[in-house]
Amino acid sequence: MNNAKFIVIEGLEGAGKSTAINCVLNVLHQHRVGEVIQTREPGGTVLAEKLRSLVKEEHEGEVLQDISELLIMYAARVQLVENKIKPALAQNTWVLGDRHDLSSQAYQGGGRQLSQDIMSNLKQTALGDFKPDLTLYLDIDPEIGLQRARGRGELDRIEKMDLSFFERVRARYTELAQLDKTIITINANQTIEQVAHDIEVALNQWFSNGQTI
Amino acid sequence: MNNAKFIVIEGLEGAGKSTAINCVLNVLHQHRVGEVIQTREPGGTVLAEKLRSLVKEEHEGEVLQDISELLIMYAARVQLVENKIKPALAQNTWVLGDRHDLSSQAYQGGGRQLSQDIMSNLKQTALGDFKPDLTLYLDIDPEIGLQRARGRGELDRIEKMDLSFFERVRARYTELAQLDKTIITINANQTIEQVAHDIEVALNQWFSNGQTI
Ligand SMILES: Nc1ncnc2c1ncn2[C@@H]1O[C@H](COP(=O)(O)OP(=O)(O)OP(=O)(O)O)[C@@H](O)[C@H]1O
Ligand SMILES: Nc1ncnc2c1ncn2[C@@H]1O[C@H](COP(=O)(O)OP(=O)(O)OP(=O)(O)O)[C@@H](O)[C@H]1O
Ligand SMILES: [Mg+2]
Ligand SMILES: [Mg+2]
Repeated sequence: MNNAKFIVIEGLEGAGKSTAINCVLNVLHQHRVGEVIQTREPGGTVLAEKLRSLVKEEHEGEVLQDISELLIMYAARVQLVENKIKPALAQNTWVLGDRHDLSSQAYQGGGRQLSQDIMSNLKQTALGDFKPDLTLYLDIDPEIGLQRARGRGELDRIEKMDLSFFERVRARYTELAQLDKTIITINANQTIEQVAHDIEVALNQWFSNGQTI
Repeated sequence: MNNAKFIVIEGLEGAGKSTAINCVLNVLHQHRVGEVIQTREPGGTVLAEKLRSLVKEEHEGEVLQDISELLIMYAARVQLVENKIKPALAQNTWVLGDRHDLSSQAYQGGGRQLSQDIMSNLKQTALGDFKPDLTLYLDIDPEIGLQRARGRGELDRIEKMDLSFFERVRARYTELAQLDKTIITINANQTIEQVAHDIEVALNQWFSNGQTI
């Protein structure tokens, strides 16, 4: 029986997504899920990584239009989903994603304030009904997250946005997490140990529920 | 008074678009339209040219999904329209385009057979009501066009498609040209001199009509 799942970690910069990956992998392995592949977005395929660079870099001062940013994000996502995630799931391999569609909803929809119409049409065109089985949303105060992210060195084009942008992103994340029961919110303002503990508890409960919520 | 227009040349590979540019420029200058900038699609800005390369090149054998191709084309188009074409027109500079949105309608809509819903939603999202003032569609038998294009050397990813693909592209071009009176069809199966003559006649008529049809 094919039982592989697609689990996604979401949250603002510095929320602790990359840090949480190992914790999630540990719990998955305790539950003997077999092979797990990791993905990140935007990126995760040869072409999608090139698109990731295009949205992160500057282009001789050329303005990246909000709609173009959104279209490039979805182009990368379609490549990843069709060429990597769906084939893995079809072979019964679990997929653990660092960001997925919820990031576009939060950053381009909430942060850049693109219309609901545009957001939902494009999502439908690009993904149809495909969605993660479970999303762990690491909710963090943007000031704390940005402070953590800054500790890592130079900021990219998005990390340079002002605080009100990230407040809008967080508000949209929170709103969507409340509407979708496959999204579990984790308080990421806590210490690394507390966050890891909460993730473990949430995942164990999901497993004991037969991988539903 | 701001009277600058956006004129586009469309057609299959080898139809003679690049060849026609000089002919169109000559007629525009005879009518003393002032400065004319040239664009090509996909491309025409720093970022759009990078996106053009991405859709033309191979990526270690990775399949470029039809939807991704479409999204990348539109990302490039939004960059070109917002950062170059609209600003030029606003400064009363004419714009002469080698391909524009009609190419997506024909290649991704007709050739790749993406649904009308997807095509029209995305066009609306990316361009709203923006469209060329005049399009010269160089209609050619795909076999003749491909033979001319092959004379130029190596074929890119799209030029390698089979004949039935280009037949569908041509059929969609023809269908859309019949529905839109700002599109003039030119028989591009003729000699270079005959095509140039037909373009000149069409443009002169458009000018004597007050730049409408
Ligand atoms: N709960 C925490 N408390 C304090 N520091 C943390 C916590 N979680 C992660 N960090 C540290 O904060 C920094 C950012 O964490 P991490 O890279 O995991 O965040 P991220 O969500 O992956 O960020 P990005 O979106 O930029 O990839 C790292 O240096 C990490 O060690
Ligand atoms: N009417 C014509 N008769 C014969 N050869 C032509 C004609 N028009 C153009 N050619 C030649 O065919 C080749 C392709 O023409 P051109 O580059 O103008 O086409 P194009 O539509 O711009 O193609 P592409 O879509 O690949 O850019 C060139 O070598 C050109 O000189
Ligand atoms: Mg990270
Ligand atoms: Mg050409």
